[in-house]
Amino acid sequence: MIQTDILIIGAGPTGLFTVFEAGLLKLKCHLIDALPQPGGQCSEIYPKKPIYDIPAYPEILAGDLIDKLMEQIRPFCPGFTLGERAETLEKDSEGQFLVRSSSGTLHRAPVVVIAGGLGSFEPRKPDLADLELYEGRGVSYMIKDPEIYRDKKVVLAGGGDSALDWAIHLSELASELSLVHRRREFRGALDSVEKARELARAGKIKMYTEAQVTGLIGERELRAVQLTPNDSTQEPIYLETDAFIPLFGLSPKLGPMGNWGLEIEKNAIRVNNAYDYQTNIPGVYAIGDVNTYPGKLKLILSGFHEAAVMMQSAYARIHPDKRYLMKYTTVGGVSGFDGTKKEAKKEVVQTLD
Amino acid sequence: MIQTDILIIGAGPTGLFTVFEAGLLKLKCHLIDALPQPGGQCSEIYPKKPIYDIPAYPEILAGDLIDKLMEQIRPFCPGFTLGERAETLEKDSEGQFLVRSSSGTLHRAPVVVIAGGLGSFEPRKPDLADLELYEGRGVSYMIKDPEIYRDKKVVLAGGGDSALDWAIHLSELASELSLVHRRREFRGALDSVEKARELARAGKIKMYTEAQVTGLIGERELRAVQLTPNDSTQEPIYLETDAFIPLFGLSPKLGPMGNWGLEIEKNAIRVNNAYDYQTNIPGVYAIGDVNTYPGKLKLILSGFHEAAVMMQSAYARIHPDKRYLMKYTTVGGVSGFDGTKKEAKKEVVQTLD
Ligand SMILES: Cc1cc2nc3c(=O)[nH]c(=O)nc-3n(C[C@H](O)[C@H](O)[C@H](O)COP(=O)(O)OP(=O)(O)OC[C@H]3O[C@@H](n4cnc5c(N)ncnc54)[C@H](O)[C@@H]3O)c2cc1C
Ligand SMILES: Cc1cc2nc3c(=O)[nH]c(=O)nc-3n(C[C@H](O)[C@H](O)[C@H](O)COP(=O)(O)OP(=O)(O)OC[C@H]3O[C@@H](n4cnc5c(N)ncnc54)[C@H](O)[C@@H]3O)c2cc1C
Repeated sequence: MIQTDILIIGAGPTGLFTVFEAGLLKLKCHLIDALPQPGGQCSEIYPKKPIYDIPAYPEILAGDLIDKLMEQIRPFCPGFTLGERAETLEKDSEGQFLVRSSSGTLHRAPVVVIAGGLGSFEPRKPDLADLELYEGRGVSYMIKDPEIYRDKKVVLAGGGDSALDWAIHLSELASELSLVHRRREFRGALDSVEKARELARAGKIKMYTEAQVTGLIGERELRAVQLTPNDSTQEPIYLETDAFIPLFGLSPKLGPMGNWGLEIEKNAIRVNNAYDYQTNIPGVYAIGDVNTYPGKLKLILSGFHEAAVMMQSAYARIHPDKRYLMKYTTVGGVSGFDGTKKEAKKEVVQTLD
Repeated sequence: MIQTDILIIGAGPTGLFTVFEAGLLKLKCHLIDALPQPGGQCSEIYPKKPIYDIPAYPEILAGDLIDKLMEQIRPFCPGFTLGERAETLEKDSEGQFLVRSSSGTLHRAPVVVIAGGLGSFEPRKPDLADLELYEGRGVSYMIKDPEIYRDKKVVLAGGGDSALDWAIHLSELASELSLVHRRREFRGALDSVEKARELARAGKIKMYTEAQVTGLIGERELRAVQLTPNDSTQEPIYLETDAFIPLFGLSPKLGPMGNWGLEIEKNAIRVNNAYDYQTNIPGVYAIGDVNTYPGKLKLILSGFHEAAVMMQSAYARIHPDKRYLMKYTTVGGVSGFDGTKKEAKKEVVQTLD
């Protein structure tokens, strides 16, 4: 069981910055995300696109924003449960919250912060017989650890950035990398398209366009996939493979959060913004895209402010006896849980002669 | 008279970012600040100190934060009235607000945003007979335009960063630069102290330590100052000069804002944060350090979020007939009033063979 001070559901920009605000108050955090990587929408949907309205960043790529946040929170050593969805939220006899993930990982904390954005990202699955049978036995929808595909045969399907980027990445590891797409055209960032084209020409990516995977073959484990060309005059092809990874995009679903007894409004969690972004369950806060209140803006900068405000309230909950006096970081510095300390250079007092 | 869409009182980080949020909604801004430069506390109190809790900036100097904000708002061409204090706020017959400055400059706008921080920065003045008589006639407390001291004789007083930095800067322009400080030791950033020491040794800064300016001499214009050494056995010195600039620090005073009929609580302006940070005067908003509501945190990131939220309400006020649909900057880009357009690179749609 993972015990922490603040359990954060959702590792998007909001969840990540929450670790920093908690750390300033000497509270430890653990994050759970259904995605295999931190960053929420920024990492999953538009990592290579620029954002222009992050204060003091005239322009920053969404992926770089996440890198900066990860760097900022590093001193506070957050724990991560990635690629697992938070399924249940309960209170135990000592008044602490228990959160169990889709893989059964159990987490416990006195405060839960839901930073679940538009919901947990769930893969769009192809419509194939026996698909569920092969999940975890050759079929997967996200890549948690590319290393497991080293020297394996891999079939990817999809025509967007994610399919292109993973094809590029895995072409170096896999013994054979096939990319299947039902159209001839791919849609992605210019540099990804160009790089993939190079690799396709060099034979490092085997291309099967205007075709779809229509069947899965194997016993307990996947052994091959059946490819059917769009052109029905052509014969199906059988590709031997260790892995089939359809990358048809992930779409967020409010999901389990809808069943935790929280007040839901407009597909979001209602909070009392007039004070601390707490939900109708005391000790459970909701911040970032996942919450709603009058005047709410679903912007990244909203989650940042909400994180700072809610953390004051969480602190008072965890330490009802202590009084927290806010100190500017410029004045107090930042002391990491890893022993690092950042602080402003002291002024010097000297004569000039 | 200066007419604009959104009149912002206070050009600290909050006021500056407000220009950006307004610009996204195609609203033009003008800022008024009592200080000669934008940046509020960041520029005036700690420009060379690092801040650690700006989201996605693991570390940034306060002065650099202001530079970044100025760069971010440049496309929206804000107007500035600097070095003038907003004195009066009234409503005219057409329901627009009129704001007059200490120098008589008149501003008019349908919406006023008070981003006045801890108040307008007012100089600490030395206790000297006839001081007011010479204000604007040789005596000043802030430097708006250093060029006016070119080839002039200047006497600065003070022992902190501001005195050191201006002494360094003006030593290159002035025909004679004297620095008076009542102690022997100066307190400032290491590099300022070192640079000033070098210039003092080279004779470019004339040092008078353990002494104070005790008298002003002149007719209509200042002609000389009297210096009295701390050691009372020594004789006073007379220094001919065109300018005397005591730099004893600026401290913020709520000032005129206290008399505009706004609801004041804890030396700040009470707003209704549950919705749009509007004050008790409809059309007048208060954001950043200057406002208060339950849960308020006087942090830079608070002002950023408050600016985004209040601007939606201001838009509805200015355009009661239009419905504004928020667009992500990543999706809609940023179109400046200067004709510039920033936007994400389009995705390409191509075949890979
Ligand atoms: C194309 C595009 C462009 C955008 N441009 C801008 C812009 O220019 N400026 C701007 O401010 N905003 C922009 N946004 C919006 C911005 O990305 C979101 O406001 C931001 O990502 C919200 O952050 P968050 O951390 O609250 O939620 P998210 O980024 O959505 O992250 C939430 C995370 O929680 C996880 N999660 C949810 N439920 C569970 C569960 N039960 N178990 C485990 N994990 C769970 C999800 O998997 C997800 O990773 C844009 C969005 C898109 C799609
Ligand atoms: C030493 C120090 C360290 C700090 N460290 C941090 C930190 O690490 N993190 C953090 O988030 N915050 C920090 N802060 C606080 C931060 O600087 C403030 O929250 C921030 O400056 C508030 O911005 P603002 O724009 O709301 O107000 P301000 O920066 O105070 O700017 C307000 C401006 O309004 C002007 N003004 C007011 N009234 C009038 C008037 N009537 N007419 C004309 N002009 C007027 C003032 O002259 C001023 O320039 C620190 C502050 C100090 C002093």
